[in-house]
Amino acid sequence: MKFFEDVLVGDVDELGRYTFTPDDIKSFAHRFDPQRFHIDEEEAARSHFGALCASGWHTASMWMRLAADQRRREAEAAIIRGEPVAQWGPAAGFRELKWLKPVYAGDTIAYRAEVIETRISQSRPESGLVVSFASGDNQKGERVISFVSTVFVQRRPDMP
Amino acid sequence: MKFFEDVLVGDVDELGRYTFTPDDIKSFAHRFDPQRFHIDEEEAARSHFGALCASGWHTASMWMRLAADQRRREAEAAIIRGEPVAQWGPAAGFRELKWLKPVYAGDTIAYRAEVIETRISQSRPESGLVVSFASGDNQKGERVISFVSTVFVQRRPDMP
Repeated sequence: MKFFEDVLVGDVDELGRYTFTPDDIKSFAHRFDPQRFHIDEEEAARSHFGALCASGWHTASMWMRLAADQRRREAEAAIIRGEPVAQWGPAAGFRELKWLKPVYAGDTIAYRAEVIETRISQSRPESGLVVSFASGDNQKGERVISFVSTVFVQRRPDMP
Repeated sequence: MKFFEDVLVGDVDELGRYTFTPDDIKSFAHRFDPQRFHIDEEEAARSHFGALCASGWHTASMWMRLAADQRRREAEAAIIRGEPVAQWGPAAGFRELKWLKPVYAGDTIAYRAEVIETRISQSRPESGLVVSFASGDNQKGERVISFVSTVFVQRRPDMP
């Protein structure tokens, strides 16, 4: 887990891929977004989507899941190397969330994050803010989701 | 379910309340946001939050759930009255999402939506776009989340 000072604008994290199964899509939607095109294949076929597709909140939440997994892997690797582990999170917010294309059952989304800005936090001087362009592309290379995420990241304790 | 022409700027929907239990918070977080302050009371107590609190994606997704429930109730009421039911959704996106305060285990959030803009869709002339200011306040009246949501809403088929 990098400290704030080690995070550079332009850094890219490939967060991994996730395949949205019909069961996943319906399970999330029953709990959080019970619209007809997210919970029923036949209703979805009659909707303008034409087939079962994931809730946008599901697509967004999976970005968070893969980002958290990535942070945990990096923290574990740092511990194995005997290095201190910087705290990432919580998120400070996000903006400009766009659902650009439907995510259909069976689609595999490759998620990534690219650092576009770093700055010291005014409200918490012990932290920096890392602003990332978050995105997900389907197996055809089409972008399905993007947003701008801002997260608090611990500064190196030994920095002046 | 109102058609686009019946939706007015200034319309407010009180979507209902939801109490975030520790189990709910941990269950969502294990699946989508496994950060220490969302999955473990003791770790959360040591974090700057000071206690177990919900993933921001969970807080946001519950807005969607209550909004969808509200739409379903309105559609059912329209059917009982023998009125045509307008299609709401899908969402076109959202912006300016802010997590303003933590949502702690036991907090009850009252969600609402206020229409702030309506306009005909350029890309889908059979639909209008309804832009709403979405928010959630805790039991102390503190705003914990807000964002601006844009959704496609069917126009009256009999309108010129």
